[in-house]
Amino acid sequence: MTHRSVFIISDGTGITAEILGHSLLSQFPDITFRTRALPFVNSDDKVREALAQINEAAMSDGVKPLIFVTFVDRTYVEQLSASNGLLFDLFGAFLDTVAKELNMQPNRHVGYGHGVVDANRYTSRIRAVHYSMDCDDGLNTEDYNHADLIVTGVSRIGKTPVCLYLAMHFGLFCANYPLILHDLSSEQLPQTLRQHRGRIFGLTIDYDRLHAIRHERRPNSQYSDLQQCREEVQRSENLFREHNVPFINTTEASIEEIATSILQRTGIRRQFLG
Amino acid sequence: MTHRSVFIISDGTGITAEILGHSLLSQFPDITFRTRALPFVNSDDKVREALAQINEAAMSDGVKPLIFVTFVDRTYVEQLSASNGLLFDLFGAFLDTVAKELNMQPNRHVGYGHGVVDANRYTSRIRAVHYSMDCDDGLNTEDYNHADLIVTGVSRIGKTPVCLYLAMHFGLFCANYPLILHDLSSEQLPQTLRQHRGRIFGLTIDYDRLHAIRHERRPNSQYSDLQQCREEVQRSENLFREHNVPFINTTEASIEEIATSILQRTGIRRQFLG
Repeated sequence: MTHRSVFIISDGTGITAEILGHSLLSQFPDITFRTRALPFVNSDDKVREALAQINEAAMSDGVKPLIFVTFVDRTYVEQLSASNGLLFDLFGAFLDTVAKELNMQPNRHVGYGHGVVDANRYTSRIRAVHYSMDCDDGLNTEDYNHADLIVTGVSRIGKTPVCLYLAMHFGLFCANYPLILHDLSSEQLPQTLRQHRGRIFGLTIDYDRLHAIRHERRPNSQYSDLQQCREEVQRSENLFREHNVPFINTTEASIEEIATSILQRTGIRRQFLG
Repeated sequence: MTHRSVFIISDGTGITAEILGHSLLSQFPDITFRTRALPFVNSDDKVREALAQINEAAMSDGVKPLIFVTFVDRTYVEQLSASNGLLFDLFGAFLDTVAKELNMQPNRHVGYGHGVVDANRYTSRIRAVHYSMDCDDGLNTEDYNHADLIVTGVSRIGKTPVCLYLAMHFGLFCANYPLILHDLSSEQLPQTLRQHRGRIFGLTIDYDRLHAIRHERRPNSQYSDLQQCREEVQRSENLFREHNVPFINTTEASIEEIATSILQRTGIRRQFLG
């Protein structure tokens, strides 16, 4: 067998099913999974179409497809359970127990998980994303008063994606400020950052990894030079230590891991927005 | 009872548990959930600390906290099951069944769900985020040859967050191009977009919602004027129809729903990156 078919099916976006499926299947790195996402399956016709695709894959693979589903409308789950695949019903596994403990019926509205729960929540995500864009890479430092967090570190260390992730998923106003050679040589935390101490978080990285990242961007430049990378990283770590700026090493970490570590270390209020 | 305590606990980031917990609990909008996230719980000491927090909440609330956990290391789950809360073991519910069907043991490595699976995957997310930043709001149209997707629509319709979401989670190179009055008056699709037909996707919105969004940003301006919003929206929809640009209305949709709809409508390859 060369691969295993996986279906992600939902009457909503299917993102919850995709994420849990991804987490489970990443425990089996030796298998190649061929994933198809079928979102917004919200009619008998669409369920029939999904069933046909599952059964076709089962036939041509010769093994059962794995099917991860989140359905608010339970009748569709029943219809899908007749397929030739192996069904994992994410809401079904837990929702009844939650409802019983809360002594309340679930409201069965599609889209609450990743829908517009309320306009305020939506607006706060959008605002945070725009703030983080506007305050990317040392821009608009005059707006730092509104920042929940100012991420700093040398160029190409991953500041931007981490800030955008925190903005998008937690509604945080995250600025980021690059430490450039001038700052690093002076051995002083830039004035801009000193004013906002307490909201600054540093990123560092192994210098050979930084070298590899920068080399890909600008091969054989001063910017990507191994010695230069080593010096920048060392000096930035010294700055963080001297000025009590909390920092983490991002070499082995994903965007999610860096973001989670920052939330944990800073104790910033953490409201998950979807 | 005024609230219910919720714990998100994991030996990784806890993001998978947070997302499934969020989806389940959003079915009970009448209850206020007080959520605490305890990521990176990867030692006996940390598990004991988590247990203490759960039991404290149980005591002061007088009802059981709900505990959503994802643990690769199963011994920690067993320890947590002794708490005074109600435990939802997300991996436990499915992993054995998956393993049996695949006839393979899970590798029990923490962090695969939202960790650096491989450097290529990490790099492709970062690259996509930077591309989408660089090609935000009509910038660097000369780089549109590399775009997987060019999102267009009037100002403040949500193009930027949707592009960043697709970049971050699916590694897509998403540019976005604003339709300004000049384009809309000419009744022509801008030359820049015409060159890339087939990769363009339009967003529209109810004009009174656009009015509200713009009003918050620049109150009582021409930009936020109700008539102006109506005209811009109508003209942009006309452009989309005339030039066969697929488009969706974002008024009631979350970032995730818009992103998912775009992937579905365009049939763009969809590889979930975490």
